[in-house]
Amino acid sequence: MPAADTETVPFDRAVNEILRQPVAAERDQPPFDRVTMDGIALSWAGIKDGNRTLKVQSRQHAGEPQQALEADTNCIEIMTGAMLPGGADCIIPVERIAVDDGVATIEDGYAAEQHQFIHPRGSDYKEGEGLLAPGHRIRATDIAVIASCGLPEVEIAKRPVISVVSTGDELIPPGEEIDDHQIRMSNGPSVDALLRSHGYASTKHHHLRDDKALLTERLQALLASSNVLVLSGGVSMGKADFVPEVLQSLGVKVVFHKIRQRPGLPMWFGIGPADQAVFALPGNPVSTLVCCRQYVVPALAHAAGSNKPPALRAVLDRDHTFKPDLTCFLPVRAHSGDNGELLATPVPTNTSGDFRALSSTDGYVELARERDQFPEGTVLPFHPW
Amino acid sequence: MPAADTETVPFDRAVNEILRQPVAAERDQPPFDRVTMDGIALSWAGIKDGNRTLKVQSRQHAGEPQQALEADTNCIEIMTGAMLPGGADCIIPVERIAVDDGVATIEDGYAAEQHQFIHPRGSDYKEGEGLLAPGHRIRATDIAVIASCGLPEVEIAKRPVISVVSTGDELIPPGEEIDDHQIRMSNGPSVDALLRSHGYASTKHHHLRDDKALLTERLQALLASSNVLVLSGGVSMGKADFVPEVLQSLGVKVVFHKIRQRPGLPMWFGIGPADQAVFALPGNPVSTLVCCRQYVVPALAHAAGSNKPPALRAVLDRDHTFKPDLTCFLPVRAHSGDNGELLATPVPTNTSGDFRALSSTDGYVELARERDQFPEGTVLPFHPW
Repeated sequence: MPAADTETVPFDRAVNEILRQPVAAERDQPPFDRVTMDGIALSWAGIKDGNRTLKVQSRQHAGEPQQALEADTNCIEIMTGAMLPGGADCIIPVERIAVDDGVATIEDGYAAEQHQFIHPRGSDYKEGEGLLAPGHRIRATDIAVIASCGLPEVEIAKRPVISVVSTGDELIPPGEEIDDHQIRMSNGPSVDALLRSHGYASTKHHHLRDDKALLTERLQALLASSNVLVLSGGVSMGKADFVPEVLQSLGVKVVFHKIRQRPGLPMWFGIGPADQAVFALPGNPVSTLVCCRQYVVPALAHAAGSNKPPALRAVLDRDHTFKPDLTCFLPVRAHSGDNGELLATPVPTNTSGDFRALSSTDGYVELARERDQFPEGTVLPFHPW
Repeated sequence: MPAADTETVPFDRAVNEILRQPVAAERDQPPFDRVTMDGIALSWAGIKDGNRTLKVQSRQHAGEPQQALEADTNCIEIMTGAMLPGGADCIIPVERIAVDDGVATIEDGYAAEQHQFIHPRGSDYKEGEGLLAPGHRIRATDIAVIASCGLPEVEIAKRPVISVVSTGDELIPPGEEIDDHQIRMSNGPSVDALLRSHGYASTKHHHLRDDKALLTERLQALLASSNVLVLSGGVSMGKADFVPEVLQSLGVKVVFHKIRQRPGLPMWFGIGPADQAVFALPGNPVSTLVCCRQYVVPALAHAAGSNKPPALRAVLDRDHTFKPDLTCFLPVRAHSGDNGELLATPVPTNTSGDFRALSSTDGYVELARERDQFPEGTVLPFHPW
């Protein structure tokens, strides 16, 4: 799958996107000796000998240019966030003073400290220091960093055009009349929703019937207009499963077909003539969602240049047996144990078509092929939805 | 804060919203005896005496009306997802048969089983069974459930109109020229981004200057057009902090001011004349984000009627001391330990204004007021951003 393009967006629309540029400090942080307390600013020299009264010379708010003390026995009323006035090296909190007739009196017994309540220039970081690197997934906390670096816009990985395709004559959209032999179309919308919940908000869902000519025509058009195709259904060995054949006739080269796993064994992946990534997911609901989360989501993140997310592990909270010689992706409910461990409760799916059970799950754990028995307490890789 | 209104949206736009209606099964699931394997469907009676060849009567795809076997020695080619034909009670996988000249021959030695590869009608759940209840946060897995219940639309909690307000003359938006004494406006955008990342996509950010008349006019207009106001800055005791006074003059009643916590002690909350929720968050970046996540996000979820999310716990991975008689919200990086525990690494913030440090954090842990020492291994409530 080819690397995503880069695009530039307003900094305040970049949350959850993958950063594509370095972000460096615009200025020292703080950019000046910053007062961290409402009160008065004064010179230590003016009180160190026991003097408790100071003439209020002026007031300095946050966002105002720096003022300067005119005498050691003066003070300046000062607000949190303001620049430390010239000549000042001591702050006394507003709660510790009384101001009367232009004179501030320090509370009896209050022991002021030199340099207290002053956040020195550059003590967080220096101008030019790298704060964020390409590949970082931008979160709300990073928006503050980008803003503080003065960037009105930021380069991010462009989200691909993703088309989700449901195939199958038996699929009837919700709201339409349904006969006994038909089933509700649910996989495509859930894949669409999973991709949306991962931030791919412009994903579009299409329903194609099991007709070879029609499939060919529609898939050709979707290949032309998409970077990524995610097909749900149509990749098992049944005679109505035209999808792999049609895709190949359209120049999509198979990269793999079938993975030694359950659910999702018939998973199919190919690359189109214009480097489109084509994922054909098995058609049952549990397989569809697991394969989307396990293969499509990481591939999209990788193409965006995203740093690999840290691996998560969870502890199985009951015994589980899985005998087939396949990797098993077991849907689980995740919850915190009393000791801070992440516990995983397997949620039995009656069949791989039992998607109702999925709605109480938070993700799935990965059971290695090499083992059959997974006793309570086994630590396993955990993949949240 | 009053309960959110209910609105109806297309089911495939409901991901991450709070469900406001029960969702019950439209039909039995599966709605018919469903074949789970591509192959042939036949009558057990036709092979139980050792017969290995069957006449291929017809073919039945998924989505087609039910056919019926015309004789015990016939079979019907069948696709995964199709209805079990009348008279059939056995499926033999396509890999185990050879079809030649209209006759299917079962592989030598293959032991077919009666009822295998058939998912019986209603075995997942019965028509009318409640599948989702109000208060549930809809995830991708639930979209499949809602679709399967035939609902083209679904009732959800209406997202409130949220206005985020930055106050402060010292705040200069990124991209504009900045003087030494000014600072970049970053808190409001990061609050806006945090709310967006929690799904409040229509949140708007406004910047108001420290001018009492202007503040009054603009806050009055925002109160009239918003359900929720989130103010960043302007709630400490400094003389330029007009915000609480102005809000009260506009009929906003204080519910509380100051919380025994760090960061975020000056946190202010009030209710407006039309029941608007007004949060005034302390003005430094760490306080702002912690208070937004700790108070605003849960209040919005509660107003939406959301079920309470399960409590998360994490294990401190180094000693930490916090002496003030305050609850401490300590930003941490979260990661999985080898034993499946969720580990929390405290991220020192140089001051509560050091938001660069925040960008490597995943949330914060909660240190109780009653203690000063929190040794490595302490299990603490964890709140992800």
